[in-house]
Amino acid sequence: MTTIKHEIRRGAYYDSVVLMQLQRGLLTLPDVLDAGVVMATQANCDLLAANQLLPASVASSPDDLLVVVKAASDSAASDALRQVDALLAKRRTSMAEDFRPRSLSAAAKQLPEANWVLISVPGRYAAGVARETLELGKNVFLYSDNVSLEDEIALKKTAREKGLLVMGPDCGTAIINGIGLGFANRVRRGDIGVIGASGTGTQAVTAQIHNLGAGISHAIGTGGRDLKLDVGAITAHQALDLLARDDETKVIVLVSKPPSPEVATSLISAAQRAGKPVVVYFIGYPPPARKIGNLHFAISLSEAAELAVEIKNWKPETKSQVSSLYLRGLFSGGTLAYETLLGLQSFLSPIYSNAPITNYQLLKDPLKSEAHSIIDLGDEFFMVGRLHPMIDNDLRIRRMKQEADDSEVGMILFDVVLGEGSHLDPAGELVPVIKEMREKRLETGDLEFVAMVIGTDDDPQNLESQVSQLQDAGVTVFRTAAEAVEYISLRFSVIKKNDFTPVNLEQLKQPLAAVNVGLESFYDSLISQGAQAVHVEWRPPAGGNEKLASLLARMKK
Amino acid sequence: MTTIKHEIRRGAYYDSVVLMQLQRGLLTLPDVLDAGVVMATQANCDLLAANQLLPASVASSPDDLLVVVKAASDSAASDALRQVDALLAKRRTSMAEDFRPRSLSAAAKQLPEANWVLISVPGRYAAGVARETLELGKNVFLYSDNVSLEDEIALKKTAREKGLLVMGPDCGTAIINGIGLGFANRVRRGDIGVIGASGTGTQAVTAQIHNLGAGISHAIGTGGRDLKLDVGAITAHQALDLLARDDETKVIVLVSKPPSPEVATSLISAAQRAGKPVVVYFIGYPPPARKIGNLHFAISLSEAAELAVEIKNWKPETKSQVSSLYLRGLFSGGTLAYETLLGLQSFLSPIYSNAPITNYQLLKDPLKSEAHSIIDLGDEFFMVGRLHPMIDNDLRIRRMKQEADDSEVGMILFDVVLGEGSHLDPAGELVPVIKEMREKRLETGDLEFVAMVIGTDDDPQNLESQVSQLQDAGVTVFRTAAEAVEYISLRFSVIKKNDFTPVNLEQLKQPLAAVNVGLESFYDSLISQGAQAVHVEWRPPAGGNEKLASLLARMKK
Repeated sequence: MTTIKHEIRRGAYYDSVVLMQLQRGLLTLPDVLDAGVVMATQANCDLLAANQLLPASVASSPDDLLVVVKAASDSAASDALRQVDALLAKRRTSMAEDFRPRSLSAAAKQLPEANWVLISVPGRYAAGVARETLELGKNVFLYSDNVSLEDEIALKKTAREKGLLVMGPDCGTAIINGIGLGFANRVRRGDIGVIGASGTGTQAVTAQIHNLGAGISHAIGTGGRDLKLDVGAITAHQALDLLARDDETKVIVLVSKPPSPEVATSLISAAQRAGKPVVVYFIGYPPPARKIGNLHFAISLSEAAELAVEIKNWKPETKSQVSSLYLRGLFSGGTLAYETLLGLQSFLSPIYSNAPITNYQLLKDPLKSEAHSIIDLGDEFFMVGRLHPMIDNDLRIRRMKQEADDSEVGMILFDVVLGEGSHLDPAGELVPVIKEMREKRLETGDLEFVAMVIGTDDDPQNLESQVSQLQDAGVTVFRTAAEAVEYISLRFSVIKKNDFTPVNLEQLKQPLAAVNVGLESFYDSLISQGAQAVHVEWRPPAGGNEKLASLLARMKK
Repeated sequence: MTTIKHEIRRGAYYDSVVLMQLQRGLLTLPDVLDAGVVMATQANCDLLAANQLLPASVASSPDDLLVVVKAASDSAASDALRQVDALLAKRRTSMAEDFRPRSLSAAAKQLPEANWVLISVPGRYAAGVARETLELGKNVFLYSDNVSLEDEIALKKTAREKGLLVMGPDCGTAIINGIGLGFANRVRRGDIGVIGASGTGTQAVTAQIHNLGAGISHAIGTGGRDLKLDVGAITAHQALDLLARDDETKVIVLVSKPPSPEVATSLISAAQRAGKPVVVYFIGYPPPARKIGNLHFAISLSEAAELAVEIKNWKPETKSQVSSLYLRGLFSGGTLAYETLLGLQSFLSPIYSNAPITNYQLLKDPLKSEAHSIIDLGDEFFMVGRLHPMIDNDLRIRRMKQEADDSEVGMILFDVVLGEGSHLDPAGELVPVIKEMREKRLETGDLEFVAMVIGTDDDPQNLESQVSQLQDAGVTVFRTAAEAVEYISLRFSVIKKNDFTPVNLEQLKQPLAAVNVGLESFYDSLISQGAQAVHVEWRPPAGGNEKLASLLARMKK
């Protein structure tokens, strides 16, 4: 009858390829029905159990190698386990054939022109190798996952000071000067640069761009956590700056899972300053518009690729003068307020509202605006025993005066909703107040009024005269929320110098040379792509023995 | 010097128009600098304070009328307050000029053909009037806000049983058979029907449709809370069913703030069954695609209008046979999994994942799929000491078998990511297993395999042969996540009969006749639009005296 036998190798390190090949080797042995070769983490033991491969009782730690064999007979299982050393040895000799450096520093000496180091060792060793790479003044492609957030932040801050890139951790792909790192599709060279916080996202976009007949200048990975608040998109900002400076890159595509809102605004305003078209696809983040200035917003990976390919001979628009003051939106229409907030939250930060989209935007006191604020004056809070602001302008006029008296306010935005049931001459009531308020700020002249007028030529108020009354009073008038959002987002876009050492653009232009630490297959693919590369015959400190390793580490100090 | 004097009228009811006119009247009196006339809620007192109009000490309840006057002198303030009764009286006589019914039932007798009742009385009285309306077998347009959620749910359930509509509470606008209710823009008649959970959203869309040269059949409001989980979009579902049956409506536009996810899926699947194009704009809800079957997804109010106008001579596609089983997605690419989940969450419910978009989608155990599941097999959880599934298919093959053994699984979706670093013949490894699994389910024949293949013709794996290997094994192959999402969303779209009494379509076709309870201006606008209408000279039970009113209510029981 079938039996399951297992063997544990305490604290022994083998790279994942070795483990896979050992497992496959065991499966070829007589009467072996199934086999599992894993590091004995809880997850891996659960997986063995799910495949009916978990031995009755295993006392193992995550650092132990667990070899399990299911065989037709007791003896077959034992025979198989006896083969383990032979199978491992077979693998080793095959690898030891050609001479290889055993340390990163040795490899660096062997290939001094290597500016890039691919790291795919197990997570718990990866940060150390990355630190060493930065100390050698080289850029990091960090494929490894299971690297702590603290390590990531520390590594990226160091890199930012040195003007180096840390792509990753958990960075699946990059294409530098035509050479793919890690997992990368073979694509045409071209003028589209890609910045990807998501591996297969970048692969899907670069592959699609190639399939559409266009090509890639460079694709820079950042790792999935780069756009989280704690990391602050350090790598994405460096990459944006780099590709903005790269003449060979005519269009930039920025792909990421939804960033934290603060990070989204800082990245988007950086993208606005790129001086070339940027296609933004924050997966699952509602696009503020289809197009705002040089920014194009996509709603799928393939659309991001299509947009990037379609953008042709783009010309920078003459930037409208930018205000450093605050916007205050005073709305009678709740949905107009909501859509405006939705559009502006990608550009103005912080922005608050009494009808927020996400809680962190909630205005403490609906009666007092803060920073940029969008107020829904039709909110229930204001409505007890009071006519709707579409009928009675008293509430809004009083609030307008309050905002205008705040010297930090540079723009007052409001909606005028015409139609049956609404006030018969809203402009007539608002214009005198607007004139009075602009008088007050005449010397500074920095108070602008923007209105969105919703109505038709059949409405009882006479649309045309409402619009012209407002325009004569110096109000900038739009007919849809979308147009107002585009105008405002450009008027307030942050101008901010980069606070980091720029990455040396020349490194991208030189023929790629790299050192590979970890998965041999990544080295093979570098060579097959015609890149110069050296593979490090890496072994973990103290052969993977954690206790000994930490002992050594303490002694170093 | 300026003084502030005030007067309190306990538990007295005046409608908001009277209060506004009283305030304006006071402002015209000699030496009066400012005045406030409000129901003494906390919010309104805060507003008075913000305008330096709050008296030193006010002991008042929210049911009290608070009249405040700021004047240049003590005597002027007193004189002004002495005018209050005169100003109120003046208003009353002007209103009492023509005879008007004082109850809804009397008005109903006066205008029996009225199928619609507009209710804009203060929130705390509105539910009662709405109940009475439903008892009379008429549809409710409930403009009032500050109506409790419990009342809304109760009213809508009653209406659903009776085949009546409750538009609102807090419903700003509707257009029925060419007549605007509440706030409504004057628009051309046409073949575009609108369902709006947002008032100004509906106004912006209907106005824009008119401005683009097209027109509106009907616009049905639902109130902003209708799409919340507790309400379950009762009115929106009724309206969808109604406009689907209306031959004059060729295209439907559905506008709402982001619905609760369950509600979104139920509404979207209902929209899929509408038998005509539906433009969906859930403000701030990431669109699953631009177009899926008869559904078009917009990202702004003006785009929703543009799409509705652009859709011409639409032809229903031949629906693919629909599966009642579950989808299991087994991905090597995290972002491909994420985008697929993002697209499918609008159509498949419930759907779970080990890499969810929102927490309620989190799979309890990544090793066990539930209902529809999207698994990211490249997640860190699986990766300790194991090669990435793009290199080693062992993990995925085992999981595929596990899913295929589950007779509730009707489709297994997977990605094949080609390129440098990836497995050199993924199809070659997967196909035999797929064939074996389809064999097993041959008799039922209800196990489908769908693959998205990401790659280029330059990739080392030979894209063409990878695709053909899969297709020869009966796998449906797509080249982008977007295409796969569209295919799957149509294969699984829920087929479900409506569980409510359909609203009588004839009511929409008859010339609109209505009873108005509350804001007189809404009555005026009905008349000015040429509709038949009666205005109820409404007074709250017991003249607004809450104690007395509740006493009477108890006596009725």
